[in-house]
Amino acid sequence: KLQNTSTMVYNTITSLVRLSLQLAKAPIFALTNSTFRKSMTGQRWATLYDELCELRREISSLEGLLNLADWDQQVGMPTGGGEARARQMGALTAVLARMRKDPKIGEILAVLETEEVRNEMDEMQLAMLRECRRSFNKYSRVPDDLIREETELSSMSYNIWVEAREKSDFSLFAPYLQQLVDIRRKIALLIAPDREPYDTEIDQYEKGMSAARIEAIFNELKAGLLPLIKKLDEAKESHVSEALAEDSDHLKNYGPFDVAVQEEVCKHIAEKIGFDFEKGQLNTSVHPFTISYHPTDVRITSRYDEEYFAEGLMGAIHEVGHALYEQGRKCTDEMDDLPINEALSMGVHESQSLFWERMIGQSAEFWEGVGAPLMHEYFDKLKPLSPSFFYKSINRMQRSLIRVSADEVTYPLHIVIRFELERGLFDGSIKVEDLPREWNRRYVEYLGIEPPNDAEGVLQDSHWSGGCFGYFPSYTLGAMIATQLFAAAQQCIPNLKEEIRKGNLRVLHPFLREKVWERGSIPPSADALVKEATGEELSCKPFLQYLDEKYSRLYC
Amino acid sequence: KLQNTSTMVYNTITSLVRLSLQLAKAPIFALTNSTFRKSMTGQRWATLYDELCELRREISSLEGLLNLADWDQQVGMPTGGGEARARQMGALTAVLARMRKDPKIGEILAVLETEEVRNEMDEMQLAMLRECRRSFNKYSRVPDDLIREETELSSMSYNIWVEAREKSDFSLFAPYLQQLVDIRRKIALLIAPDREPYDTEIDQYEKGMSAARIEAIFNELKAGLLPLIKKLDEAKESHVSEALAEDSDHLKNYGPFDVAVQEEVCKHIAEKIGFDFEKGQLNTSVHPFTISYHPTDVRITSRYDEEYFAEGLMGAIHEVGHALYEQGRKCTDEMDDLPINEALSMGVHESQSLFWERMIGQSAEFWEGVGAPLMHEYFDKLKPLSPSFFYKSINRMQRSLIRVSADEVTYPLHIVIRFELERGLFDGSIKVEDLPREWNRRYVEYLGIEPPNDAEGVLQDSHWSGGCFGYFPSYTLGAMIATQLFAAAQQCIPNLKEEIRKGNLRVLHPFLREKVWERGSIPPSADALVKEATGEELSCKPFLQYLDEKYSRLYC
Repeated sequence: KLQNTSTMVYNTITSLVRLSLQLAKAPIFALTNSTFRKSMTGQRWATLYDELCELRREISSLEGLLNLADWDQQVGMPTGGGEARARQMGALTAVLARMRKDPKIGEILAVLETEEVRNEMDEMQLAMLRECRRSFNKYSRVPDDLIREETELSSMSYNIWVEAREKSDFSLFAPYLQQLVDIRRKIALLIAPDREPYDTEIDQYEKGMSAARIEAIFNELKAGLLPLIKKLDEAKESHVSEALAEDSDHLKNYGPFDVAVQEEVCKHIAEKIGFDFEKGQLNTSVHPFTISYHPTDVRITSRYDEEYFAEGLMGAIHEVGHALYEQGRKCTDEMDDLPINEALSMGVHESQSLFWERMIGQSAEFWEGVGAPLMHEYFDKLKPLSPSFFYKSINRMQRSLIRVSADEVTYPLHIVIRFELERGLFDGSIKVEDLPREWNRRYVEYLGIEPPNDAEGVLQDSHWSGGCFGYFPSYTLGAMIATQLFAAAQQCIPNLKEEIRKGNLRVLHPFLREKVWERGSIPPSADALVKEATGEELSCKPFLQYLDEKYSRLYC
Repeated sequence: KLQNTSTMVYNTITSLVRLSLQLAKAPIFALTNSTFRKSMTGQRWATLYDELCELRREISSLEGLLNLADWDQQVGMPTGGGEARARQMGALTAVLARMRKDPKIGEILAVLETEEVRNEMDEMQLAMLRECRRSFNKYSRVPDDLIREETELSSMSYNIWVEAREKSDFSLFAPYLQQLVDIRRKIALLIAPDREPYDTEIDQYEKGMSAARIEAIFNELKAGLLPLIKKLDEAKESHVSEALAEDSDHLKNYGPFDVAVQEEVCKHIAEKIGFDFEKGQLNTSVHPFTISYHPTDVRITSRYDEEYFAEGLMGAIHEVGHALYEQGRKCTDEMDDLPINEALSMGVHESQSLFWERMIGQSAEFWEGVGAPLMHEYFDKLKPLSPSFFYKSINRMQRSLIRVSADEVTYPLHIVIRFELERGLFDGSIKVEDLPREWNRRYVEYLGIEPPNDAEGVLQDSHWSGGCFGYFPSYTLGAMIATQLFAAAQQCIPNLKEEIRKGNLRVLHPFLREKVWERGSIPPSADALVKEATGEELSCKPFLQYLDEKYSRLYC
């Protein structure tokens, strides 16, 4: 039987056969200009629309491979393979950049965007047109040289930021940050010459949003949060001894928890929530993430802290939320692999992860019916702990300096601060050199604590060092949308909380599928999606109400 | 700590930053024709050569991702992801097809191939020129329509072949096989109009080889093997009782062997042979294979039979042999990611896997010093078995019908039969409908056994159904080259067999590295490589001598 081990070579050949079949089906998208012009005469727009879809599908397929390469890099790649992988991903990114700005896309769009064609299109086709235009402008309007310059700058800046944070010295990073703001402004003005650059930045992550709209929401949110936090803190102080007891009796004191068992618990929960393991995987990585190649192949990762199982568990629930959104996308011919089938925005994506993490995973019903029984089953030493102990232990409010470890009550203030500063940087009202002062002033004013140094202050997040501005608001928009969706789900699903207590978590799928997952990028903005899904405007009121009720009950 | 779970989105952004840095470094290979012409004036050929290298490096990087997608598909992809993966690989294959026949490559080659430039080139550059020309002709001379036609035909034919084999009815497959031969002939004549089509087919897998050269070798091989097999069989018959005892006392009777432990043993052996786990992985798959994205990331798989550990073990050793060749390629600037750094041929690749599988893994010294002690260590129940028992158990000669399960003595005759038939099909001397008769006649004549049906005869291999002709000879050329390399290694390395007995298997690396791994595709053929490495012509004599000595000792 020794020769039974087929050689790599023959395997490669059979793959090529399989592949080349796909090649045969693939569109020849490198039609010359003249072919294109000829094909336009006497042709209905539907043919052009189909051609646009084919071009976009090929892009989507290649993006899937880019995601696979990224996943492999984070999950299992041999350590020595890093450099070659970077070159591979760079080569595919370059191919994608050329395809995304293929002039033929521009020519097709110009025809389809005429009034008479638009009048004949349905909602989906109009959305497709909108999304293709957004992408085409983004990729075709910025010259290669500028992209290269920005890329080199952000890469260098990232390294400088790492050093600056280690030394806790913002002044090292400041000149780079200034250049990053300048170049991002320049790029934004090329993409949308008539728009405020910061709005264009926001639009990348949260389409259809603007700084003005976010400001209105965030001002109301701030106005509600500041007194709430004050009230909760006062309540905590009036029960000093209890609060202290709380700290000493934290779940963290019950470790260690075997990592393999934690992983099993997470798979169990993922299954219960409805993650489809035939269309996805759960792996381990340094930072938890969700990556999707297609709705039929969505991979999530979590990480496990031996001392504190809630880290891995809540991380897994969070990623399962992202993954359900990705797996729930519609694979019909009109949607599959097209931009209208992509997640609507970062805020909506976060609304899905936070829906499951906070509305479900941090709820009393979940810990009564699912969480505590599961913990008792897998970890003998947790058997004495009541559901309410778990619930209280993972729901704590505590003013703090670091965004990523903040609780759900104080987290939005970290975001509001970043939003205000970014906006100021982009409209020139805040100078880069004043950033640490402006940062610290707001932490004192909103959170009542002052960062002792830049590392725990203005240098804590990597976003800006990568030239990423306008992303932060999405985190909190997501939290707000999650509460609004949960409230709407309660209207639709009889006895929802009771179902959660019974562990019937999948009862939520039809609602989310219809209202969010299958809507893809058809609604033009998170605002529009929330209105469609809940009948209400996107607003911070339900979020504030949720926090007030939950934490007043916990602390007051 | 709950928000510590970074979202997929932010991860994606940081990846893009990292990626776009690579993009910035990537060559702009879509230079227009006019740019190209301008750049030629007053420029030395070295610049064009560099440009050619850049074009080829980008292709190599993308091929790496295609291999990753294939690996993932075979090792871990969720079952639901198959269709999307096929589309993804198809899209990348289409991109690669366009890049491989980029007219700019043709233009550069035309300049570099002039006499005066060639006179200034060194060995490596000339080899690079040769390999780029080979690839460019192969991809640019066949029109897309024909490739599409062939691809659809092979895909359909594969399915028909599966059915025909199930029903053991060659007549179902015959018309497709005829069309496959016709289309492959047509393609071969487009690639090399002045060459025999079958020679062009062979050249794809075994460059620099021809049917005439293989025929000469195989005739000599056949003339040596037929009497050897007869002699060994007579010896077996004269010790009938012993042979029977042998059968009843086979290793297979000592199972089951825990699969996880088998895997550990294989990792142990892989490590001992010198597989670099920092630049590779060992995984499990349905069919063992080796896949390489780059010398720094080479992944092998094996499979494990609970009843028979030698299956997984020898499979792993075989794949480690392939992998060492891939990991051993030279990553200098002049070689890395270029066609001259690819494996020279399928025969040379097989010589590396068979070197380790047969010359080492099936040797008495290996079982004395490494194999038996390891088996005793991991499997208590094998402790009573002597090294010689293991050695005899995995080295058995037995005439049989099925190529993939044949032993090393009879295996070459399976190959000779296929070679003779393929050659006849291509030169018209054998008709497709006569194939089963011609097949069976040869099995009787060379191996003394007649296939009872088509499934165990002419329909047993999938190669032809995928339009793959001219590949089979490489298996046996590889076996011959392995013995020649081992003989040469014995000249170079003092007490080689003693070193093997001591488990110092890595002592072979410097020899193989210098003679084979780092030579890549610089020598123009396996013939040239063997001459370089051993000082002798590629020949079947050392192979016949090896088999005669080894099996005479075992059986006579």
